[in-house]
Amino acid sequence: MFAAHCMRLVLRRCSSAPRPKPAVAPKLLRVQEALEVQNPTGNDIKVQGWVRSVRSQKEVLFLHINDGSSLESLQVVADPRLESRELTFGSSVEVQGKLIKSPHKRQNVELAAENIRVVGPCDSLAFPLKYKTHQPLEYLRQFPHVRCRSNSLSALLRIRSEATGAIHSYFKDNGYLHIHTPIITSNDCEGAGEVFQVEPAKEVKEPEENPHFFNIPAFLTVSGQLHLEVMAGAFTKVYSFGPTFRADYSQSRKHLAEFYMVEAELAFVESLQDVMQIMEDLFKRVTDVVLSKCPHDIELFHKHVAPGQKAKLEKMLNNQFITMPYTEAIEVLKGAREYFTYKPEWGQDLQSEHEKYLLKHCGEIPVFIFNYPYDLKPFYMRDNEDGVHHTVAAVDLLVPGVGELCGGSLREDRLDFLQSRLQRLGLEDTYQWYLELRQFGSTPHGGFGMGFERYLRCILGVENIKDVIPFPRFPRSCLL
Amino acid sequence: MFAAHCMRLVLRRCSSAPRPKPAVAPKLLRVQEALEVQNPTGNDIKVQGWVRSVRSQKEVLFLHINDGSSLESLQVVADPRLESRELTFGSSVEVQGKLIKSPHKRQNVELAAENIRVVGPCDSLAFPLKYKTHQPLEYLRQFPHVRCRSNSLSALLRIRSEATGAIHSYFKDNGYLHIHTPIITSNDCEGAGEVFQVEPAKEVKEPEENPHFFNIPAFLTVSGQLHLEVMAGAFTKVYSFGPTFRADYSQSRKHLAEFYMVEAELAFVESLQDVMQIMEDLFKRVTDVVLSKCPHDIELFHKHVAPGQKAKLEKMLNNQFITMPYTEAIEVLKGAREYFTYKPEWGQDLQSEHEKYLLKHCGEIPVFIFNYPYDLKPFYMRDNEDGVHHTVAAVDLLVPGVGELCGGSLREDRLDFLQSRLQRLGLEDTYQWYLELRQFGSTPHGGFGMGFERYLRCILGVENIKDVIPFPRFPRSCLL
Repeated sequence: MFAAHCMRLVLRRCSSAPRPKPAVAPKLLRVQEALEVQNPTGNDIKVQGWVRSVRSQKEVLFLHINDGSSLESLQVVADPRLESRELTFGSSVEVQGKLIKSPHKRQNVELAAENIRVVGPCDSLAFPLKYKTHQPLEYLRQFPHVRCRSNSLSALLRIRSEATGAIHSYFKDNGYLHIHTPIITSNDCEGAGEVFQVEPAKEVKEPEENPHFFNIPAFLTVSGQLHLEVMAGAFTKVYSFGPTFRADYSQSRKHLAEFYMVEAELAFVESLQDVMQIMEDLFKRVTDVVLSKCPHDIELFHKHVAPGQKAKLEKMLNNQFITMPYTEAIEVLKGAREYFTYKPEWGQDLQSEHEKYLLKHCGEIPVFIFNYPYDLKPFYMRDNEDGVHHTVAAVDLLVPGVGELCGGSLREDRLDFLQSRLQRLGLEDTYQWYLELRQFGSTPHGGFGMGFERYLRCILGVENIKDVIPFPRFPRSCLL
Repeated sequence: MFAAHCMRLVLRRCSSAPRPKPAVAPKLLRVQEALEVQNPTGNDIKVQGWVRSVRSQKEVLFLHINDGSSLESLQVVADPRLESRELTFGSSVEVQGKLIKSPHKRQNVELAAENIRVVGPCDSLAFPLKYKTHQPLEYLRQFPHVRCRSNSLSALLRIRSEATGAIHSYFKDNGYLHIHTPIITSNDCEGAGEVFQVEPAKEVKEPEENPHFFNIPAFLTVSGQLHLEVMAGAFTKVYSFGPTFRADYSQSRKHLAEFYMVEAELAFVESLQDVMQIMEDLFKRVTDVVLSKCPHDIELFHKHVAPGQKAKLEKMLNNQFITMPYTEAIEVLKGAREYFTYKPEWGQDLQSEHEKYLLKHCGEIPVFIFNYPYDLKPFYMRDNEDGVHHTVAAVDLLVPGVGELCGGSLREDRLDFLQSRLQRLGLEDTYQWYLELRQFGSTPHGGFGMGFERYLRCILGVENIKDVIPFPRFPRSCLL
């Protein structure tokens, strides 16, 4: 131990590592930290960030510096002699000075600059963002490497980060274990579908003749549910939060080829009502956290991107979600005076127009539609054994502006039911392992998935799903 | 508003949802919650889980129930008349009774059962896990749908979940924004490599003639670094924690085709020392959290899987990590009396045998090797402009038992340097967007990545990387 210590000292001494910095230096603050100082006493501080505005007056130079820690920028006041040709919108700077009370009402503090260093200039002509110009979300989408520096996208990404943290906290606080379900899988949860296949790129040298890297065809996951069922059978309550994929060629504002799903699975759950309760609880609690942690970022969307969304969201949060069996939903639709392109019919899927009508019917309060026709749903959903109108214990949560936000079900935990269903589908061999879960201490269990981008669209009122993910992937587009 | 409320009541009434449960019911506790009760007063409780042992004596029936919330099981004592044929190792049960002080020293509490219900029996013959039988990790690997119910894998997955949370907390507490970097990408960060390509499965119908879903070839990410650099240029400090992929045919205990990486990127960082400090800080703080939150699970590994690992880990945690320039490392290796299969030579990569020797030389304290030869490293690393022994500001963190745990660098932030390097590589067009980041307010910046499975191997002493991930993917294998 002592020998190791000596050796370390020797190594440190003979290393050519950079020398330590001088001890007395102004304190480096993030912009948000500086803005939060209540009673500034003229302390020496340093701020690093990007110039959001430069306004030079005869006696004073005003700058606004943003470093992404908050929507608000820090106002800098300086002697006009500190101005330079490179100090422009978009350039990166380091400003040192004294943090003082601002005489202006618009902000509490400002930075009286003593030194302004342009770290990296900005080629204003080529820079896609322009000073004081409103650039719509569609326009910004062309520049995935730059749009995060706009107010709207930076607000979005702060909200996304906060919501991510809140989702992890929700499950952790409620006793769930986090599981990394696999991205590459040989199972296709939905039974048949628009999946991406994965093989090494042509350039990769294969050691032997074999059409598949994994020996068998392998796909990008469409859901971690089956893997979570494995884990619920060991840990009782589990969740995952990761990317999922659909090779869907439809170009729509509602679909992405790569998107994030929150999925939870619980053993010893016998009632679909319990699953619904968790979905509602998750939605409300995560949204409460995001609203309280990112008030300014949320306000940007509720004021400028989707006026009216604030009231809509409050209605969702302040009302208990409605529950309605599928059969009743069909009756409501059949009794509607509205014209539907797709005629509502028992046994048919609900279309967007139907979902919209049902939400209107429910006063724009989120509604759980449950007990769907047996033949509509995948093999793993629990048979309700309810006669002519044969249903399974499935549930979808519909929310205003988005439609389906969550989907869940009780899973078929009875070996004989599952076996005969898989047999009829010719899938018994493929899902041997899944059947075995029902042989070794099976439990009634259920779970659900929530589309994370749909969630963000729902709380913010953002029209296009491409604007709520940092790097959207969709047919014919994979920028960066 | 009122109308909506009335409608909701009407809808609730006419829904055929299950009736509420009776009000007075024994409190459902997780096993861990029951075990943590300090002074049990005979309260009525209910526990759900899987039977880990059944021992029937003349006067009393002993069970151990585990629900995955902790390594320890809850002891149940019952009248032997409550025994049934289906009450076997592996079956799922619900036990109701009174939580009382245990007369035995081995546990603080036990459950005096009044009712035992077998929820799902277990086919003992077919069940791969056997009572009181030590089954090595290699054996368990064949049963990815069952192995999470063994002590070792369940401990591992609890540790993995806790470490995941601790990593998110570390970055959040230090002002980093979480970013979901894309999984499918048209960029290949390492310049040339063993990547997986992604296209729709054959069954997916294409609407038009085009060889690629995304118009261009698209791959599974090998690193989110370039995308994080985009984000560091807006938010200053960012991180990601997600899956990465290598189409590497080598079968080794150190490689997976799908694994998790923690990556961080910081703007306004000028010294490699600062990047090293964060790596060391992350390692030590996350490990401290895991050690304090999962003492029993960690103990299982340190006692039974890798004896001696505890002392090794303590040495890592209690010593400042060593720093050593690559050039010095080569000198150390050249001066070694040891025989190496690969002769150490300036300009060559360090091999496993070299890493091992350097760690031994450093007294098994983690060591940062930094300033690597320019020609060894990818285009984005910052040129040190240091003459004959031309290096870049790159760093690798070597840890005992694992070798390279982290890799990082300062990034080339100077437009002219980056441009001429990309030109020479013929990559200027591909990385036009990356060059633009250096035109629009560039900053000195740097970052690193840490392999999450390597991290788990390092703290636990697990030999094979396939045993620290729930569903391992490697050449010729993609179970489930």
